[in-house]
Amino acid sequence: MLTNLSGCDFTSKEELESRIGKLRQKMEENDISFAVILQNVDMFYFAGTVQKGVLVIPLDKDPILFIERNVDRAAVETSLEITPIKRDKDVKDILMDRGILRGRGGMELDVVPVTVFERWKALLGFENFTDIWPLIRDLRIVKSPFELVQVKKSGEICAHVFEKARDVVRVGMREVDISAILEGEGRKFGHQGFLRMRGLNQEMMNIYITHGRSGTIPSSGDVPIAGAGVTHAIAQGPSLNRVEKGVPVLIDYGGGYNGYISDETRVFVAGELKERFITAYEVAREIVQDATVYGKEGMDGTEIYNRAESMAKKAKLKDYFMGYGAGKVGFIGHGIGLEINELPVITPRHHIILEEGMVFAFEPKFIFPGEGAVGIEVDFIVRKKELERVTPTPIDIVYV
Amino acid sequence: MLTNLSGCDFTSKEELESRIGKLRQKMEENDISFAVILQNVDMFYFAGTVQKGVLVIPLDKDPILFIERNVDRAAVETSLEITPIKRDKDVKDILMDRGILRGRGGMELDVVPVTVFERWKALLGFENFTDIWPLIRDLRIVKSPFELVQVKKSGEICAHVFEKARDVVRVGMREVDISAILEGEGRKFGHQGFLRMRGLNQEMMNIYITHGRSGTIPSSGDVPIAGAGVTHAIAQGPSLNRVEKGVPVLIDYGGGYNGYISDETRVFVAGELKERFITAYEVAREIVQDATVYGKEGMDGTEIYNRAESMAKKAKLKDYFMGYGAGKVGFIGHGIGLEINELPVITPRHHIILEEGMVFAFEPKFIFPGEGAVGIEVDFIVRKKELERVTPTPIDIVYV
Repeated sequence: MLTNLSGCDFTSKEELESRIGKLRQKMEENDISFAVILQNVDMFYFAGTVQKGVLVIPLDKDPILFIERNVDRAAVETSLEITPIKRDKDVKDILMDRGILRGRGGMELDVVPVTVFERWKALLGFENFTDIWPLIRDLRIVKSPFELVQVKKSGEICAHVFEKARDVVRVGMREVDISAILEGEGRKFGHQGFLRMRGLNQEMMNIYITHGRSGTIPSSGDVPIAGAGVTHAIAQGPSLNRVEKGVPVLIDYGGGYNGYISDETRVFVAGELKERFITAYEVAREIVQDATVYGKEGMDGTEIYNRAESMAKKAKLKDYFMGYGAGKVGFIGHGIGLEINELPVITPRHHIILEEGMVFAFEPKFIFPGEGAVGIEVDFIVRKKELERVTPTPIDIVYV
Repeated sequence: MLTNLSGCDFTSKEELESRIGKLRQKMEENDISFAVILQNVDMFYFAGTVQKGVLVIPLDKDPILFIERNVDRAAVETSLEITPIKRDKDVKDILMDRGILRGRGGMELDVVPVTVFERWKALLGFENFTDIWPLIRDLRIVKSPFELVQVKKSGEICAHVFEKARDVVRVGMREVDISAILEGEGRKFGHQGFLRMRGLNQEMMNIYITHGRSGTIPSSGDVPIAGAGVTHAIAQGPSLNRVEKGVPVLIDYGGGYNGYISDETRVFVAGELKERFITAYEVAREIVQDATVYGKEGMDGTEIYNRAESMAKKAKLKDYFMGYGAGKVGFIGHGIGLEINELPVITPRHHIILEEGMVFAFEPKFIFPGEGAVGIEVDFIVRKKELERVTPTPIDIVYV
């Protein structure tokens, strides 16, 4: 008999029921009579397990968690009743028997590939599906108290790694050397192994060490700083670049605990830092401090962005704010949770009203072409009267 | 001006032209008049860069590499001519002007999500697409001499990590501790950071350390051994389990160099190993040795599998061969290249005739429920008269 294989908490029955209940409410509003959940992250959210299978949530009947493998493991992890199957073909008969295949179905069409979708439609003999991801996405924005505990434990891994970094970052080390040690430190402290990013071609590492010029190389991704990497086949992450005196080293690290991501950045410097970098860093710090008291439930994300940008502008740093030239990105914050690209996005492009329990990484950064980058990234939980830091780690420049 | 940011070689003009030429031949045979390549791995294969964009390969005109970001980086990495775009909407006009949007298009429908596909059809005002993945997949099976050099360099990272493991694996260490150190060793030696696995929900780590019972916990994935992990949210990888005397530690490591994957497994033991494990290990070794001389160009993969299975059967180990009970997997080898789940799959379920230049990981493993697992995994290059090892590292049990 399998038992809990880790020190991590399972998602409780009440928690799963509450999430499923909220999804049903949204399904009803959107005229969706059943949901077919195939992606592992959404499956984890609604069923508390990522074992291979499919979760069907009808509007007005019990959810059915079909598990192909491994049934024993899923059974200890989820409070939902499991229906073991040999292959996904076995699903249709049960859904037919229970009268579920009617009305309009919902599937995660933002991630389910075309041939997988075609196969499921043929398997089920049912064609009328719509994209259920917008409903799930909106539901996942606000984190429950249980989820916030996981995010905070994830933040503790970040705090641990930044603390260790004081003793690791030294002149002459390559970015990959620092990365190798710190990623290991995170792992030993409880990091889950990898982080998840939703969508086609969305790839990421747990840690980005960039230093001087390598922090200024525009990325293919929609991120301000991704590094040069050690091969153009990956084209992101730490490079072979060696730490020099007086040049800022950015450590952008993603904690991962029980599925939940934290994502923070700190600056480390060996020796003195050039005035230009210090000035920009202080602006980043002011932006973080300002957002902490200004941001709260009810605030529009666009206002937070605009306020930060005007602070950068006032300091005559707008050209370098969140990148330069074609590498500039159009946001200063992104939601985190089970995936690193959740809502809310803090951007001037879309209005989003903050609600208590939303969690986002906030990252004012300045990139000076060819020279280097400085900035801060902290994770915030939205509260009624303020933004709460996920982890209270200091945000000062660390001189080593 | 950007230059090569790493020590890795770019894919040459001749190599890219040869690959594109072969794809066109297959497109012609399959009545496809143009290919729209969106996935980063396929983009890398045909264009030598993973910068954000889309590659259009018409049957009878020059390929068009549209790059959204970063144009400068793509420009130094690829020999193809680049067409910079602001957003993917800009693609249609150019394709119309050049008369490309006619006949039948091909897209990677095995990975392109439904809403992305719908969006591209709307953007292009073109509906007639078929799945081009089977053509690309078959083309990517046979590696070029350039690719084999990359695979061998990837194998050197594996060899380095196994060598280091001799000094790392010790009684009392947790699987995650060993993992943290060895993953770092690989990174410092040149590992690219992460490995790629194609398809929805396909996730993997660079290293799997399993010991005793944790190597016997059936996985949700189609792999014989995946470990317990530190959370059911990930449900794979090293766990908090501590190394004990006399119990085998399996290290399954994936090298990654310039995009190319190597994937090997070795057994480490502190103290004496139980007779049962030694016997099974020797059968695994015989299976590897037998396949090395028996496998060659022209051989059917099913024969290699059946031969291995009958050796396991003869040793009265069939019940534990490649897993037990519901956790048993139906293959003993899988193709490797830019992704870890390439062809050929060495399985009794599908015939595949080996061709020179194919590369696959071959992994006879025995899993004894609750007790532990032993086995070997080596990477083979198919040659005319034999199978060639990617790296010549010894395959003996390592006693530490």
